Amino acid sequence: MEEAAPTRPLPIGRIVAPRSVAVIGASEDVGKFGGRVIHYLIRHGFPGTLLPINPNRATIRGLPAWPRVSDAPLAPDVAILAVPAATLEAQIADCAKAGVGACIVITGKLAEAGPEGAALQDRVVAMARGAGMRILGPNCLGIFNPVDRAMLSSSLALEEPDFAPGGIGLVSQSGALMGTLLSFGRHHGARFSRCISVGNQADLTLEDFLAYLLEDEATRTIGLYVEGLRDAPRFRALLKAARVAGKPVFAVKAGRSEAGAKAARSHTASLAGAFPVFEAICREAGAVVLDDPQAMILACDAAIRLPPWPAAGLGLAPIASSGGSTVTFADMMPAFGLRLAEMAPATCAVLGDWMPESHVALPVDTGSFHEGTRGDGLAACIRAFMADPDVGAVAVPMTTQPDMAGRTALFPPLAREGGKPLLYVMTAGAVGDASRAVMRAADFPFYDRMADALAVARALDAEAAGRARAQAAMPARPEGAGPPPALSAGPLTEGEAKRLLAAYGIPVTREATVADADAAAAAARAIGYPVVLKGVSRAVVHKSDLGLVRLGLAEEEALRMAFAEVTQALDRAAPGAGEGCVVQEMARGEAELFLGAMHDAQFGPMVMVGAGGVLVEFLQDVRMAPAPLAAGDARALIEGLRMAPLLRGLRGRPAADLAAAADALVRLSWLAADLGPRIAELDVNPLILRAEGQGAIAVDARATIAEEDAS
Amino acid sequence: MEEAAPTRPLPIGRIVAPRSVAVIGASEDVGKFGGRVIHYLIRHGFPGTLLPINPNRATIRGLPAWPRVSDAPLAPDVAILAVPAATLEAQIADCAKAGVGACIVITGKLAEAGPEGAALQDRVVAMARGAGMRILGPNCLGIFNPVDRAMLSSSLALEEPDFAPGGIGLVSQSGALMGTLLSFGRHHGARFSRCISVGNQADLTLEDFLAYLLEDEATRTIGLYVEGLRDAPRFRALLKAARVAGKPVFAVKAGRSEAGAKAARSHTASLAGAFPVFEAICREAGAVVLDDPQAMILACDAAIRLPPWPAAGLGLAPIASSGGSTVTFADMMPAFGLRLAEMAPATCAVLGDWMPESHVALPVDTGSFHEGTRGDGLAACIRAFMADPDVGAVAVPMTTQPDMAGRTALFPPLAREGGKPLLYVMTAGAVGDASRAVMRAADFPFYDRMADALAVARALDAEAAGRARAQAAMPARPEGAGPPPALSAGPLTEGEAKRLLAAYGIPVTREATVADADAAAAAARAIGYPVVLKGVSRAVVHKSDLGLVRLGLAEEEALRMAFAEVTQALDRAAPGAGEGCVVQEMARGEAELFLGAMHDAQFGPMVMVGAGGVLVEFLQDVRMAPAPLAAGDARALIEGLRMAPLLRGLRGRPAADLAAAADALVRLSWLAADLGPRIAELDVNPLILRAEGQGAIAVDARATIAEEDAS
Repeated sequence: MEEAAPTRPLPIGRIVAPRSVAVIGASEDVGKFGGRVIHYLIRHGFPGTLLPINPNRATIRGLPAWPRVSDAPLAPDVAILAVPAATLEAQIADCAKAGVGACIVITGKLAEAGPEGAALQDRVVAMARGAGMRILGPNCLGIFNPVDRAMLSSSLALEEPDFAPGGIGLVSQSGALMGTLLSFGRHHGARFSRCISVGNQADLTLEDFLAYLLEDEATRTIGLYVEGLRDAPRFRALLKAARVAGKPVFAVKAGRSEAGAKAARSHTASLAGAFPVFEAICREAGAVVLDDPQAMILACDAAIRLPPWPAAGLGLAPIASSGGSTVTFADMMPAFGLRLAEMAPATCAVLGDWMPESHVALPVDTGSFHEGTRGDGLAACIRAFMADPDVGAVAVPMTTQPDMAGRTALFPPLAREGGKPLLYVMTAGAVGDASRAVMRAADFPFYDRMADALAVARALDAEAAGRARAQAAMPARPEGAGPPPALSAGPLTEGEAKRLLAAYGIPVTREATVADADAAAAAARAIGYPVVLKGVSRAVVHKSDLGLVRLGLAEEEALRMAFAEVTQALDRAAPGAGEGCVVQEMARGEAELFLGAMHDAQFGPMVMVGAGGVLVEFLQDVRMAPAPLAAGDARALIEGLRMAPLLRGLRGRPAADLAAAADALVRLSWLAADLGPRIAELDVNPLILRAEGQGAIAVDARATIAEEDAS
Repeated sequence: MEEAAPTRPLPIGRIVAPRSVAVIGASEDVGKFGGRVIHYLIRHGFPGTLLPINPNRATIRGLPAWPRVSDAPLAPDVAILAVPAATLEAQIADCAKAGVGACIVITGKLAEAGPEGAALQDRVVAMARGAGMRILGPNCLGIFNPVDRAMLSSSLALEEPDFAPGGIGLVSQSGALMGTLLSFGRHHGARFSRCISVGNQADLTLEDFLAYLLEDEATRTIGLYVEGLRDAPRFRALLKAARVAGKPVFAVKAGRSEAGAKAARSHTASLAGAFPVFEAICREAGAVVLDDPQAMILACDAAIRLPPWPAAGLGLAPIASSGGSTVTFADMMPAFGLRLAEMAPATCAVLGDWMPESHVALPVDTGSFHEGTRGDGLAACIRAFMADPDVGAVAVPMTTQPDMAGRTALFPPLAREGGKPLLYVMTAGAVGDASRAVMRAADFPFYDRMADALAVARALDAEAAGRARAQAAMPARPEGAGPPPALSAGPLTEGEAKRLLAAYGIPVTREATVADADAAAAAARAIGYPVVLKGVSRAVVHKSDLGLVRLGLAEEEALRMAFAEVTQALDRAAPGAGEGCVVQEMARGEAELFLGAMHDAQFGPMVMVGAGGVLVEFLQDVRMAPAPLAAGDARALIEGLRMAPLLRGLRGRPAADLAAAADALVRLSWLAADLGPRIAELDVNPLILRAEGQGAIAVDARATIAEEDAS
């Protein structure tokens, strides 16, 4: 037996495609987990050696059964266990003893169920690691590998009659969701390479399988259902490697909502992590984040079976024989962040051959063709769209009509010839099944909902943006960005925070700390009226709320009166913790931004930008990115804000200095990168933007510095 | 023959359920329109008299055929025509002569195709009206009436084998969309009473059939696909009548997007009308507007086959045996405007019987039950949710699992017993078909997508809000609201616009028009510094952009300097059209709103409210309602704004005076109602809101008055 034992540690490829599998708790009864596992292995044609393990049976499904794995005549690559938690430890020990390469542990009620389960899980992992044996799970549903006909799972999804192999690789922290998505995808003709349910990730992690899928030749696109990560920096590096490898990644992250985040924590005992950070990391790495797992599968499939969406930001060209479906499709687009293409004159000319000039516009209702909907006219229009530089994809929201299946057959060759996606929607129920069959036979995707096609279009557009990230500029440190001054832990005063910003070349207001009214008046004369007066205390977070800020002091009398009042207010607000007053230049400009820096426990330094002033508090209009940041990415982040039109100058107002804003954000990103975990929090609010070419200036800032060892 | 002729005009009920039908252009060939019409009538069991009309055949499908309708032995209630446009006039003439009650005209290329078609359509309608004969269409796809087995259409949707009658009434301006929705609904077990495709509405209109469905006993809920309305006030009154009749109305309106609006205009030759006005009218009348026609059908069905959503604003309780599906479902909810329920202690106690205390939270993963997912635990939790006052509906996003069909069977009785909706999602593909069959057999809705269930939940919540509109307060004219002063046509000055507002009791700034600097100084002393100075010209729209507004003038010197500058700027901006300057009280407050009034050509007077100042220009944060408005509705409109948190007081700022804002909006609504079409436009921007209890004040206003006869 010794000579047959698999290499330890067994490479992941051999876990996904094992030559031999022991099914612990194998049974003739498909009502039992172990019964289903062996049933599905046989049913889907597992080509390797199967070892049913059952102490009470001599044979199972016609195969010789063994009381324990260690009794079997060879040490299998993989053992699958769906045994009660109480017997898990003994079974794992026997597997370790037998020389099993890896155990797939379906058993639940481990770390996800509480401290007792967590302790058992730890013991099992320690035992496996001691023996050089890998563990997938526990609390997982195993692996579907249609390429090698290794369906290593008890999932009822394997009741589907067959699974043709394809290019979608899936890693999921939810086994049930993975099973359901396999079946959902199959309805649409989507085909999978390997699907891995990682469960509690006690040993092998989502990152391990992501790395495997990047190398796997059968896998062309990757879907991820993520609850929490074990190694965030590695995850980020793998996403970037996926881009370089030309394998698009589509991910759903549990915990987008607060409730979801809380539930995800308990579900597979993962720390869900902050959703906005995850999304920012994915965007920066060129991966696409979706909210709907069903849409994720359709997007993965579209990325393989449709020609690529040429470039981010292009428009859609909807065309069908129903005004009702094309118009409502167009109406639904803005909610998905999509727009209609602007047709080139050449495209309009082609359309004009078939329909009255008055009807030449998107969306196209082919019912308006001079002679009604005709295949040749439809093909001519679609060819014109495919050649139109502003068209990202053609969409066909098809309704019931004569010769539905015949018309449907026109589309796959047109899309392949044109080299752009064609999103075919069959909106009807069973009367559309003949058309769906045509698409399945043509190996071409179809959608049952207009909303599905729109979700796919949004994902493909985002994927095109992600593709461009493979050539993204590397962040370069601007001149004069750092080094940081020495900082002691705790909250900084506004002045200290601004000195930190100034050390990175971010312009801040001129100001002077003053102890009495005479000094204030002298400072104001030097700075120039009007001035701002602020009471200083590191104990105070929101100065304005406490009467510690006076804006627009136009002359000395007003300043002296304000000094008296602010000093009093400071005594009230922070008794004994006042640090005098600051006289500041009164900055004015065209717009206000909020900038922020933070250190994420998993992903490290991050920067944020959003609408400034009070707007930041109620508009959810903040963008985030990992630090440091390239100048172009900083600009794109700012221009992606919903308030961006305000920055570009509305109603004849001058445009704000976006270049200066982007420069400040880049400098802040280097500050965040240099200080790392020492930044507990840092806000600049507002950064005032002057008119184009006239710069930006940080008017208020606050920061809290963590202890040196607080990483 | 004379004695058998139908009453003229034929009641709509007899068009929808005719006793006798002539099929003009009847044929044995189902490749032809007329061939399909007679085929489908026979196939779906039409119980009345069928008269095939074809000059070349003695019998068709075993029935005696007649060369012309006027040759037939009786005058049928209905004739269906899918003849070429060129022969339409002659056929209609023959129908008129024969005494036909109504013609269903499938023929297209009429008004929707251009002026020539429009002229033909006009002649056909004139001829029919002259004879007392009704016309449905042209450019329609007829009527599906499963209740009376009268499938009067050539739609390929009738290839579906059978249509059990149900309660959904549908009126659609798109025939193709109607056909597809019938088939889409059938997949889900949704059943229809009558579906009417109204096409170009040359004679019978969408409003006519809406009125019919309100009276129709078989119809319990109504779906509408609207491109344009023929009689908007009647439509509005019918929506309100539907509420009183307890028949929920769900509507999709083409033209939500600009492109959609343009396309809808050409599609069935309808004026699409402004989408925000349509939506406001529907909301006020208690109807629900959706963007997705497929979701509309699911919502109509849910309104019939599920218990009612108890009240608007309640939460959802997702529960299933997958952490992955329940968490992602919860994560998707905010995008649909939905929230999780906040469980009552009693509910938590029940959950605590089945799962660890640490897991008692929504969404519920039944995999965390002490003994794993069990039917009795599932049922206990759902019963607890049904009894929980904050739960609007239970959602079950089911994934592949053991005994799927058996588990599925648990839900319909639990929903019926609990009296609240249960949204069952079968996320898998074909392996879920047994579960779908269970739901069909139980006559209970299922959804194939989590997104479908969420769209339905959003619609049911909106329907509950609409239900409350049946008891909505009638608008009451506040004291001192009007009458309006005499107004001459054209743009008003700010002062004139404010006098108009003041005539309705809306507070405006104190101000004086002045001709020179001395008068300005005197006025400022009377009003009290600081003041605002504005240059006046009715030729200027955006005063600030042209240097005509000076804020915060603190003393006389500054005022005199500003007067000189503003006077110069006024000469530049409006040479010869200056009307002096205005000295104004400088109003300050906590927040700014925009109020507007307009007159919609179809629906009449409307008011708007939104974020004030520059925010209104880039935040799409404006709510609209028909005028006049009840006080509670005005308040709700303001509280529905996205910027509402700002008004309620952020970070310890005082709350703004929402009651005063609502009062100003009500008064403006009476102004709009009184002036009607004379208001070309009227904006108050900003209305400054002071702290709670301290009122609101209109700081700037502009208006343009139309000629007296401009209605």
